[in-house]
Amino acid sequence: MSVLVSNFINGQIVQSESGNHADLFNPANGELRGQVQLSSAKEALGAVEVAKQAQHAWQETPPLQRARVMFRFKALLEQHADELATLISTEHGKVHSDALGELTRGLEVVEFACGIPHLLKGEHSLNVGREIDSYSMMQPVGVCVGITPFNFPVMVPLWMIPVALACGNSFILKPSEKDPSPSLKLAELLKEAGLPDGVFNVVQGDKEVVDALLESPDVAAVSFVGSTPIAEAIYSKGSANGKRVQALGGAKNHLVVMPDADLEGATNAIMGAAYGAAGERCMAISVAVAVGDETADKLVASLKQKVESLRVGPGLNVSPENEMGPLVSEPHMNKVRDYIQSGVDQGATLVVDGRDITTSTPGYFVGGTLFDNVTPDMTIYNEEIFGPVLSVVRAKDYQEALTLINEHEFGNGTAIFTRDGDTARDFSEKVEIGMVGVNVPIPVPMAFHSFGGWKRSIFGPLNVHGNDGVRFYTRMKTVTARWPKGQRESEFVMPTMK
Amino acid sequence: MSVLVSNFINGQIVQSESGNHADLFNPANGELRGQVQLSSAKEALGAVEVAKQAQHAWQETPPLQRARVMFRFKALLEQHADELATLISTEHGKVHSDALGELTRGLEVVEFACGIPHLLKGEHSLNVGREIDSYSMMQPVGVCVGITPFNFPVMVPLWMIPVALACGNSFILKPSEKDPSPSLKLAELLKEAGLPDGVFNVVQGDKEVVDALLESPDVAAVSFVGSTPIAEAIYSKGSANGKRVQALGGAKNHLVVMPDADLEGATNAIMGAAYGAAGERCMAISVAVAVGDETADKLVASLKQKVESLRVGPGLNVSPENEMGPLVSEPHMNKVRDYIQSGVDQGATLVVDGRDITTSTPGYFVGGTLFDNVTPDMTIYNEEIFGPVLSVVRAKDYQEALTLINEHEFGNGTAIFTRDGDTARDFSEKVEIGMVGVNVPIPVPMAFHSFGGWKRSIFGPLNVHGNDGVRFYTRMKTVTARWPKGQRESEFVMPTMK
Amino acid sequence: MSVLVSNFINGQIVQSESGNHADLFNPANGELRGQVQLSSAKEALGAVEVAKQAQHAWQETPPLQRARVMFRFKALLEQHADELATLISTEHGKVHSDALGELTRGLEVVEFACGIPHLLKGEHSLNVGREIDSYSMMQPVGVCVGITPFNFPVMVPLWMIPVALACGNSFILKPSEKDPSPSLKLAELLKEAGLPDGVFNVVQGDKEVVDALLESPDVAAVSFVGSTPIAEAIYSKGSANGKRVQALGGAKNHLVVMPDADLEGATNAIMGAAYGAAGERCMAISVAVAVGDETADKLVASLKQKVESLRVGPGLNVSPENEMGPLVSEPHMNKVRDYIQSGVDQGATLVVDGRDITTSTPGYFVGGTLFDNVTPDMTIYNEEIFGPVLSVVRAKDYQEALTLINEHEFGNGTAIFTRDGDTARDFSEKVEIGMVGVNVPIPVPMAFHSFGGWKRSIFGPLNVHGNDGVRFYTRMKTVTARWPKGQRESEFVMPTMK
Amino acid sequence: MSVLVSNFINGQIVQSESGNHADLFNPANGELRGQVQLSSAKEALGAVEVAKQAQHAWQETPPLQRARVMFRFKALLEQHADELATLISTEHGKVHSDALGELTRGLEVVEFACGIPHLLKGEHSLNVGREIDSYSMMQPVGVCVGITPFNFPVMVPLWMIPVALACGNSFILKPSEKDPSPSLKLAELLKEAGLPDGVFNVVQGDKEVVDALLESPDVAAVSFVGSTPIAEAIYSKGSANGKRVQALGGAKNHLVVMPDADLEGATNAIMGAAYGAAGERCMAISVAVAVGDETADKLVASLKQKVESLRVGPGLNVSPENEMGPLVSEPHMNKVRDYIQSGVDQGATLVVDGRDITTSTPGYFVGGTLFDNVTPDMTIYNEEIFGPVLSVVRAKDYQEALTLINEHEFGNGTAIFTRDGDTARDFSEKVEIGMVGVNVPIPVPMAFHSFGGWKRSIFGPLNVHGNDGVRFYTRMKTVTARWPKGQRESEFVMPTMK
Repeated sequence: MSVLVSNFINGQIVQSESGNHADLFNPANGELRGQVQLSSAKEALGAVEVAKQAQHAWQETPPLQRARVMFRFKALLEQHADELATLISTEHGKVHSDALGELTRGLEVVEFACGIPHLLKGEHSLNVGREIDSYSMMQPVGVCVGITPFNFPVMVPLWMIPVALACGNSFILKPSEKDPSPSLKLAELLKEAGLPDGVFNVVQGDKEVVDALLESPDVAAVSFVGSTPIAEAIYSKGSANGKRVQALGGAKNHLVVMPDADLEGATNAIMGAAYGAAGERCMAISVAVAVGDETADKLVASLKQKVESLRVGPGLNVSPENEMGPLVSEPHMNKVRDYIQSGVDQGATLVVDGRDITTSTPGYFVGGTLFDNVTPDMTIYNEEIFGPVLSVVRAKDYQEALTLINEHEFGNGTAIFTRDGDTARDFSEKVEIGMVGVNVPIPVPMAFHSFGGWKRSIFGPLNVHGNDGVRFYTRMKTVTARWPKGQRESEFVMPTMK
Repeated sequence: MSVLVSNFINGQIVQSESGNHADLFNPANGELRGQVQLSSAKEALGAVEVAKQAQHAWQETPPLQRARVMFRFKALLEQHADELATLISTEHGKVHSDALGELTRGLEVVEFACGIPHLLKGEHSLNVGREIDSYSMMQPVGVCVGITPFNFPVMVPLWMIPVALACGNSFILKPSEKDPSPSLKLAELLKEAGLPDGVFNVVQGDKEVVDALLESPDVAAVSFVGSTPIAEAIYSKGSANGKRVQALGGAKNHLVVMPDADLEGATNAIMGAAYGAAGERCMAISVAVAVGDETADKLVASLKQKVESLRVGPGLNVSPENEMGPLVSEPHMNKVRDYIQSGVDQGATLVVDGRDITTSTPGYFVGGTLFDNVTPDMTIYNEEIFGPVLSVVRAKDYQEALTLINEHEFGNGTAIFTRDGDTARDFSEKVEIGMVGVNVPIPVPMAFHSFGGWKRSIFGPLNVHGNDGVRFYTRMKTVTARWPKGQRESEFVMPTMK
Repeated sequence: MSVLVSNFINGQIVQSESGNHADLFNPANGELRGQVQLSSAKEALGAVEVAKQAQHAWQETPPLQRARVMFRFKALLEQHADELATLISTEHGKVHSDALGELTRGLEVVEFACGIPHLLKGEHSLNVGREIDSYSMMQPVGVCVGITPFNFPVMVPLWMIPVALACGNSFILKPSEKDPSPSLKLAELLKEAGLPDGVFNVVQGDKEVVDALLESPDVAAVSFVGSTPIAEAIYSKGSANGKRVQALGGAKNHLVVMPDADLEGATNAIMGAAYGAAGERCMAISVAVAVGDETADKLVASLKQKVESLRVGPGLNVSPENEMGPLVSEPHMNKVRDYIQSGVDQGATLVVDGRDITTSTPGYFVGGTLFDNVTPDMTIYNEEIFGPVLSVVRAKDYQEALTLINEHEFGNGTAIFTRDGDTARDFSEKVEIGMVGVNVPIPVPMAFHSFGGWKRSIFGPLNVHGNDGVRFYTRMKTVTARWPKGQRESEFVMPTMK
Repeated sequence: MSVLVSNFINGQIVQSESGNHADLFNPANGELRGQVQLSSAKEALGAVEVAKQAQHAWQETPPLQRARVMFRFKALLEQHADELATLISTEHGKVHSDALGELTRGLEVVEFACGIPHLLKGEHSLNVGREIDSYSMMQPVGVCVGITPFNFPVMVPLWMIPVALACGNSFILKPSEKDPSPSLKLAELLKEAGLPDGVFNVVQGDKEVVDALLESPDVAAVSFVGSTPIAEAIYSKGSANGKRVQALGGAKNHLVVMPDADLEGATNAIMGAAYGAAGERCMAISVAVAVGDETADKLVASLKQKVESLRVGPGLNVSPENEMGPLVSEPHMNKVRDYIQSGVDQGATLVVDGRDITTSTPGYFVGGTLFDNVTPDMTIYNEEIFGPVLSVVRAKDYQEALTLINEHEFGNGTAIFTRDGDTARDFSEKVEIGMVGVNVPIPVPMAFHSFGGWKRSIFGPLNVHGNDGVRFYTRMKTVTARWPKGQRESEFVMPTMK
C-alpha cells in the first residue's frame, strides 16, 4: 500500500508530469512508505498562475467572510486531529502526543486568524490638515509562498497559511520532501472549509521548484523556515528578485541554570526541551549552561539518571507511549552519530552515549546523549545538531553565561532558570536572542504574539504570526483626501413669494 | 401548551419562588403564550452571589481557554439558529428572516470575542527609567449585569455577554419581560459550550430585580439598552452605587436625501430602515429629511407607492414571507396609533395611514405609515415612536438639514444619501451623532467596531463591543518593577589551584 | 504684599464679583498670604459659555497644530520651572526639589500630549461588506472640567489639561482653594504658547462653583481628584446629569516587605514614600506590612533611626534643603495630630511621635511619626490620614499580607519588596490594587501609561492620561459608507468615425 | 570662499584622508561652490565602529530621555530653519519657501519621534497559560545607515534619523554628493540637542562608502531613497549581507482628472505638483490623465496658460520669489532636455517647450514643459524624468485611466480629482499604488502615518516613519515567564506559645 504524494492545485489533486520523485520512509522502522513527486519549474509556475488568478476574487471577499473560512478550518482540524497527528508520526517519527501538540500550536494560529477583521484595521486621521483626512488600508500582497521544513510538517505551514489567507492572499505551499503527506490533508480541509479553488495550492518538489518560485515575478512574498545557510540563500535570492522575504534559520538554544534554580524543575524542563521530538526542533535546548560547579555537578548527575531511562522507540501504537521517537532519516541519523563522535574526539565528557541504543524496531534511532565539559571551541557547541544531544557547558558566573550566549552565531531561543527577579530581568533585557524563557524551557510565543529569532536565526525584519505576520502579508496603502465644495452651499427650494 | 419562563442560575433552570409573573403573548395573533416569572430581589442577589463565587476560577482560566468556549458557543448558535429565530419571532413578532439577521449580528460579537487573547493585551514598557519596567494588565471587573430590551432579545444580550465572559467576568442577564425565552436558550448553549456553572446566569424580573442588581455592592458593571429615561435612571443609580455603567437610550434617526442622491436606492433603503421590524429598532430611520422641494416631492411619491404595497402579517409560517410583522404588544400598538393621531392633529400630512391595515391574523398590527410636511415642533418629530411611522421633513438646503439633526435631543444614528464626496465628508465630520451612514441607512458598526450614540442616546464614555467593550469589561492594573542586585554579581566556581 | 487670586476667563485675568473669598496661608510659617476669590455659580456658568464658544474653532484646528501649542507649552513650563515650584512650595509647603519633581511629572503629560496626531487615530476597515467601508473618528467631547486637589496643584491639573486640550476640547479648571496660584501661571503660559482665548479657563471657588459646573448641561466631562467621599459625590452627581466622569479618591497604600527583601533598599524607599511631601500624596505609603516578626523587628529598628533624624522645616530657602515640609493647613495639622492620638488610644505602639517636633518656623508641622503593631481594626489603619504617619502591620506570611490589602476599602497603590520572582508575580496578579510596585515604593504610572486605582479609589471606567485619558476626552463616531455607481461606468470620449 | 564638506564622526568634524573629492556647484548660476570629500571604505568602517561603540550606552538611556533629545532637536531646527533652507537652496536649487516646506515635513518626523516612549511599547499577555505570562520588548537593532538622495537633503534624512535614534540605535548618514552641506548642520544640531557623541555620524562619499556600509557585519539596517535601479541593488546587496533593508525607488505619478472635477482646482494642483522643485520630487506628478476629450481639451488649455507664465529663476534673493528654480546639475539638465526631444521625436504634442527658457542667471534651468497626447509606448511616459515635464495622457473612461496606472512599473503615488464619492472610493481601493490622493495632488502621508509606494517603487515590507518606521528600527524580543513556587508558601512567624 505504497503512497504517492502529489500536488494540489486549483482545488484538485494533480499528478506531476515531471517523472521525478523522492522516496518516503517510515523512520520508525526504516521501511519504504512510498514516493513524493518532485515537480518541475513549469508546474510550479503553473501553480503561481492559478494562485494569481484566484487571488483577485478572494481579495474582494470581505475579511469577515474570509474569517469564517478560518472558523470552519479550525473545526475541521479538530475533527481530523488524530488523522493528522498519525500522518505526522508516520513520516516524521515523533511520538503521537507530540504530533498532537504540534497540531495544537498550529491550530492556535488559525484561531488567531479568525480575528482578521480586527487585525486588518488601518488607521484613520481626521483633519491632518483643515478638511483633509488620511487613512490607511492594509491590502493583500498577492501570491505568497511558504517553504517549510520536515520537523513540523503541520505547525510551520500553519504559522503562515491562516494569516496569509485571512489577509486576502493566495498561497503556495512547498513542503519538505521528507514528510509531505500532511500538506495534502491541510489542502483538503481548507477546501472543505469553503476556501475557493486556487487560493491555496501545494507544490511538491525540491530546489527546482524553490528556484522557480523565487524567480517568478508573480510571487510577492516568501516565508521560509529551515537551516541558516538555506534561509540566507532564500532571503538573498528572494530579495534580489524584489520580494518581501522572511527566512528563519537554525538555532543553538542555551538554557542557563542558576545556582538558585529549582533544580528538579530545571532538570525536567531540560529533558523535554532537549530530547522531545529527538531534538529536531528549532527551539530545542541543545546547550545547558550551568552556573557554578556545584550547580553543574548536581545538574549532570540528575540528567544522567533521567537520560539513561528515556523510553525510546516508535511514535505510534506503543503503550505506554515512548518519550522519544526516531530521527527523520538514515542520513540524518548518521550525521548525528558523527557529531557525537566529534564531541568525544574534541575532548568533551560523554556522560550518556545514545549510539548504544537498542529499540523494538529497526528505525533511525539515536538515544538520548549527554555531554559534560563542553567548551565554545567544539563543533558540537557551534553547530546545530538537530538530534537528541545535549551539551553541558560550565560557567563561573552569570555574566560568563550571558556572554557565551551573546557571542554565539544564532539567536533563536534561550532560557534561564532562577528564582531571582533581578537575574531574570537582566537576562531578558541583555540577551541577544529573540525568544526568551524565564523558567520556561521552550519559549515559543503564542499565536497572537510573533515567532522570530535574532542574529543569524532570522533574515528579514518581520516575525511570523501575530501582528508581524499580518504586516508581512499586507501592503499598506495610505489615502489622503479632500473635496471641492459645491452642493452643500446651494439652496434647493423653489423661490416663492411667501 | 403554555410556557413558563424561569431563571437560569448556577448552570440550572431554577424556578422563582416569588409567586409573581407576567403574561407572555404571541403578538402575531394576540394569544396568551404563557408566563415569565418575576423574581424577587433576594433571588437576584442570590444569583449575584453565585456569579461572584464562580468568577474566581473563570478569571484564572487563561484567555485562550476562555476563547475556546466562545468558539464552541459560535458553532452551537449556528446549529440552533432556526430554533432561536423562531423563538424571537414568536415572542417579539418580527419576521423569521429578520430574526435570523438579528442572530447573525449577535453572533458576530461572539466571533469577535474569540480573539480575546489578542484583545486583552496590555502594554509593556522596558526602561521607563534605568532598569525599571512598567506594564499593564487588563483584568476582569468581576460580576457584570446586562439589562436588555424587548426589540432584540438575542442580539443585544450578545453585544455584551461574549465580551464580558471572554474578559473573565461572570454575567447576569436580566432580559425583557416581553420576550424572555431566548435568554434561556443562550444560557443552555453557553453551558453546552463548556462555560462553567455560575459564570452565566439569567434572572427574569422587573424593576425589583433591576434595583437589587443596581444596589448590590458585588455587581461591578452594568450594561443597559432601552429607552432614554430608563437609561438615564440606570446610569445615575448605578453610578451613585459606584459601578461602571454604559446605558444606551432612545433615538430619532434622520436620513438626509440630497438632490443628487440615487433616489431609487435611497427609497429602497428607507423602506427597510423605517419599516423593518415594524420600526422597533433603535437604529430605525424615523425621519427622512428631503433637501429641496423637488427631492421631497419625488421621494414622497416613490415612498407612498411602496408603503402602500408593504406585505404586513405574521412573521412565521407564511409564504412568501411578510415584510413586516406586528408590534410587540397591545399597549404599544395603541401608543403608536395615538402618535399617528397626534401627527394628524398637529398638522402633518398623513400620506399613508397604517391604522387602516387588515391582516390575516388578529395580532398587534399597525401598517406602514407615512407623514409629509412634518416640522420640528410636532410630537411625532420629537419623540421616539418605535413603530412603522416615517416622517418626511423638508429642508431648503444641506445646512438646514444638518442643523435639524444636531439640534435634536438624540444622537444615535443618522445617514445621508448623496453622490457628492464633499457633502458626505462634511456631514460625517459635523453631525453630532455617534453612528453615521453614507448611503447606508442603518449604520450599525460591525462587532469589531463599537456601537454607541451621542447626546442623550448614551450615558457613559464607553461604547458597546469592539475595543470599547473590552475596555468596559476590564480593569487596568499597571505594574512598575525593578529589582535589587545580588546573585548576578557573584561568582559560583569553587576556588581551585588550577 | 498680599496676593489676590482671581479667575482666568477668555484669555484674561478676571475679578470675581461675588464678594466672597477664602484666606491663603503660607504653611511654613502660618502667615496670611492673601486671598483667593470664591466665584459665584453665575460666574462659573459664564466661564462655561466662554469655553463652549471657543471650543468650536479649536476643534477644527488640526491636531498637528494643537500639538504644537503643547510643544511650546512644554518649553515654557521648563523655562518657568523654578517660579512654578516656588509658588507650589509657598502655598502647599512641600520642599522645593519635591515641587520641581511634581512639575516634571506633570510636564511629562504635556510631552505625551505632543503626540496627539498619532494618539487620536481612529480605525479604518475596508470592505466590512462588499464595497462598504467603516471607520471611526475620535472627536472632542466639548467643554471639560477639572476639579483638583491641594496636594499637587500643578501635577494633577497637568494630568488632565494637556490631553483634554490636545483632543480639541476646551477646559475649565477649578483648583483647590488652598493653593490656587499655580493655576493662573499655567493659564498664562498656555496663552503664551498660543492657545486661543477661551479654550482654557480657571474658576476659583468652592462647592457653589463645583455644583454649578456639575449641573451645567454644557459641561460634557468632569475629571476629579480628591478624597473618596467627594469623589463619590462628584461621580454620582455628574453622572446623574449625564456627564462622563472620572473621579479619583483616597488611598491607603500598603508596602509589603518580604523576608528576602533588600532591607536597606526597602527602608530608604519607605522613608521617601511615607514622609515625602509630609505624606500628602494619594500614592504615599501609609502602611508597611512586614512579613515575619524577624523582618518586622529589623524594619522598625531601621525606620526608627531614620525617622528620628528626618530634617523637617520650611520648604524654601533653607540649605541644606529640608526633607519634609509642613502640612497644608492648621486644621489639617490638628486632624493629623488627632489621628496620632487615636493610634495611641487604640493600642498601637508609637515608636516615633512627630507631635514633639520643633522647627525653625512656626508653621503647620508634624514630624515623622511611626507606629508598630498596628492592626486592621484601628482607625489609623482604616482611614487615610494624609500626613507623615506610617503604620507597621505584622503579617505571618505572604498570604496574610495579600489578604490584608485586598480587604481594605481602597485600591489605589501598593508595593512589594522581594527578590523572589514568584512572589512578585503572584502579588502583581492577585492584589486588588490598580497600581503596583515591585521594589518600587510609589508606582505612579508614566504619562504614556494611565493613572488609576481600583475599588473605592476610583469611580468611572477610564483612568487618567495615557490612552485612557485620550479615550476619556473624546467621543467615538463611526461612519459606514458605500456609494451608488455612476460616473465610473461612463465613457467620456466623443463618438467619432476613426 | 570655497566650502569643503567633510565627515562628522564621534561628535566632531573629521577630514577625510582619502584624497578624493567631488565638486559642488550652485545650480542657480553654475558656479563652483567648493568640494565634498569622498571618504574611503576604511573611513566608513571606522564610522561604523564608532557608532557601534556609542550605541550601547544610548540603548540603555531610557526612551523618555532619548525623546527629550528629540524635543530639543525640534526646537533647534526651528531656530535654524532659515539657515538650513538657505543651504538647501544653494546646493539643490529649489526656491527658499520650498526649502522651508521641505524642512517642515522633516521636522514633523522629529515631532513624531518625541512620542517614542509610547510608540515603543510592547505587548503584555497575562496568563498565556496558567501562571505563565508573555511580553514583547522592542529593542534597537544597532547601527543603522541612511543613504539619501539629492532632491530632499534635509527631509529624507529626517524621515529616518529621528525614528532610528529615538528607538535607541546609532546612525550613519551618507548624503548625496550633490548637496551634502545640510547633513553637517543636522549633525551639529543633534549634538547641541544633547545627543551623545558617536550616536550620529555623517560619512561623505560615493559607491565605495556605500559598498563598505552594505558589507559591514556591524551594520544592522539600511534605509535608502533614490532611483529604482539603485534601490533594487541596495536591497539585494544589503539583504544578501543579512541586513534589514528598506529601499525606496523611482516613481511616475499619475493624476487623473475626471469630467466632474473642479477643473480650476485640479489645474492649480497640477501646477504645483508637476513643476514645484522643478519636478525633482519622487511624489511629483509627471502624468496627468484626462478622462474624456472634453476634459483634456480644457485641461491642456488651462495648463498651457499657466505653464507659460511660470516664474523661473534662482531660488534665493529674488523678489517676488520665483516659482521654480534650476535643476540640480548640468548633466541632469541635459538629460531632461534629451527627454523632451524624445517626446517630440516619438510623436507627443509639445504644448509648451521649457528648453526655450531665458533666466536672469546662467544656471541649470529648464522651463516648465507640457506635452499632450502622450501614449504608454513613449519613453517620456515610461521613465522617470525628474524634471519639469508634464505629460497629458487622454483616457476614454475611468476604467482606462485606472488600468493605465496599474500597468505602470512604478507604484509610488497617484491622485484623482473628482467630486464623486463612488469614483474616489473605487480608485482608492483598486489602484495599485501606495499613496493615493483624492483631490490632493501630492499625497505624502504625514509623519505619524508611513511613506511608501508599491511595486518597483519600494523594496522591503516596511515603509518609512510612522509605526512602520518604528518597527523597522527595532527588533522584537518576546519573553515567556513563569516562576517556581517557594517563599510565598512559607510562614515567617516565630513559633510562640500563644
